[in-house]
Amino acid sequence: MPNSRKRRVEVCFSPSQYHLYKQEFEIAVVIDVLRATSAICAGLEHGIESIIPVSTIEQAREYQNQGLPAAAEREGKIVEGFDFGNSPYAFMNPELKGKTVALTTTNGTKAIEIASDMPMVVIGALTNIDALCAWLVEQDKNVMILCSGWKDKFNLEDTICAGAIADALIDSNKFKADEDSTIAAKFISRSAKENIFSFLKASSHRRRLKKLNLNEDVKYCLTPNSVTAIPYLVDGQLQKLQFEFKAKSLA
Amino acid sequence: MPNSRKRRVEVCFSPSQYHLYKQEFEIAVVIDVLRATSAICAGLEHGIESIIPVSTIEQAREYQNQGLPAAAEREGKIVEGFDFGNSPYAFMNPELKGKTVALTTTNGTKAIEIASDMPMVVIGALTNIDALCAWLVEQDKNVMILCSGWKDKFNLEDTICAGAIADALIDSNKFKADEDSTIAAKFISRSAKENIFSFLKASSHRRRLKKLNLNEDVKYCLTPNSVTAIPYLVDGQLQKLQFEFKAKSLA
Repeated sequence: MPNSRKRRVEVCFSPSQYHLYKQEFEIAVVIDVLRATSAICAGLEHGIESIIPVSTIEQAREYQNQGLPAAAEREGKIVEGFDFGNSPYAFMNPELKGKTVALTTTNGTKAIEIASDMPMVVIGALTNIDALCAWLVEQDKNVMILCSGWKDKFNLEDTICAGAIADALIDSNKFKADEDSTIAAKFISRSAKENIFSFLKASSHRRRLKKLNLNEDVKYCLTPNSVTAIPYLVDGQLQKLQFEFKAKSLA
Repeated sequence: MPNSRKRRVEVCFSPSQYHLYKQEFEIAVVIDVLRATSAICAGLEHGIESIIPVSTIEQAREYQNQGLPAAAEREGKIVEGFDFGNSPYAFMNPELKGKTVALTTTNGTKAIEIASDMPMVVIGALTNIDALCAWLVEQDKNVMILCSGWKDKFNLEDTICAGAIADALIDSNKFKADEDSTIAAKFISRSAKENIFSFLKASSHRRRLKKLNLNEDVKYCLTPNSVTAIPYLVDGQLQKLQFEFKAKSLA
């Protein structure tokens, strides 16, 4: 495909930089690998009907008062008064099947809210990366990958995931990238590919979670392609896209 | 040195993220490799007495009207009505010896202004990196390296330079880094070390300058250690620090 006809895929490192990048894109992919978007993918894969992402603890509490299961995480911990935070395993609870769940997290749900002015918002993680990329390649739209980061700062794990998505789309020969952030993300992602755990050993957020004894969660979030659910935002709720993905690795 | 006693060195990718990082630092190193900070280092090395960095073209014009040589660059080009922009070669002009020069550029002078609330602001580039690092190691202060980027976005060449500075300081065993941005910058810098020109081939700003036929400037800016001047900000002017640097590579 001639370069000029190609769609663009670019990586934005932080919600605070979203306004600099958002022009010319029709799809935003929001990523918060540790752990919000991994948990959202796990939940919809395991039967949660829809997830309402909210920015504040107060909003999550309102939904809780209305009788909805509600999850709230701040600084890696479950907020007092809530049943769960953003552990992916909590989102696989069979009792949540068919239910609508409210969720607020330190970074991920904020990034989803910021991206919600985009025509289409989908949720990405390492856990759904192959299905997500297969779907994105079919859309013929410009794609912006928004890393949630940590309190508006750059983080490594989201960058690795974003770079891997950009790489896969460019490999399809239907996308190109212009921004230095995308070049850097691709580069970091390729370098981390061989052993993502050792690559992230020094990362700030992994250290943070390690202190909280969340190694099982980290392991789950950093293992690619355990699910095929692609959550997307519709009327303020995250639901599972209808998309039949035939994964080679999952076949 | 025990880890807790070490000073911190961290990399901030963009002036728009400065406020997230600036706490706890006493020295800001401002970097705009292509080309503002390379030009500033070249100018002070070659005898310019001081450089007044200003954010706007209007401010530069006022200094010009007062009889000062004034330089202005926007989008890589010399602004109409000014004698020079931010080509390092223009700053080596013998006619500028002993003079005070006003300068405004797209990214670099804006970053200097943003960092000016720091107790100490120094100017870094690949061209003065060894002298700068030798000086920083002697200071026993926390160092924040501020990349000017491109219109508040991440760029590769500033990140490579910032990562190399962070790496050198950590190697001295007197500094440590905690932020993911610093880990990423170090990583990108090490990978680019072997051949920085080919690494940057795809970078957005290098493509921009190539179109403008500025390959000689790019070559100069990407060649390490041609100067030993360390510009610092004093009363709104950039002057040469008094620091005797005995470089092995320059000996």
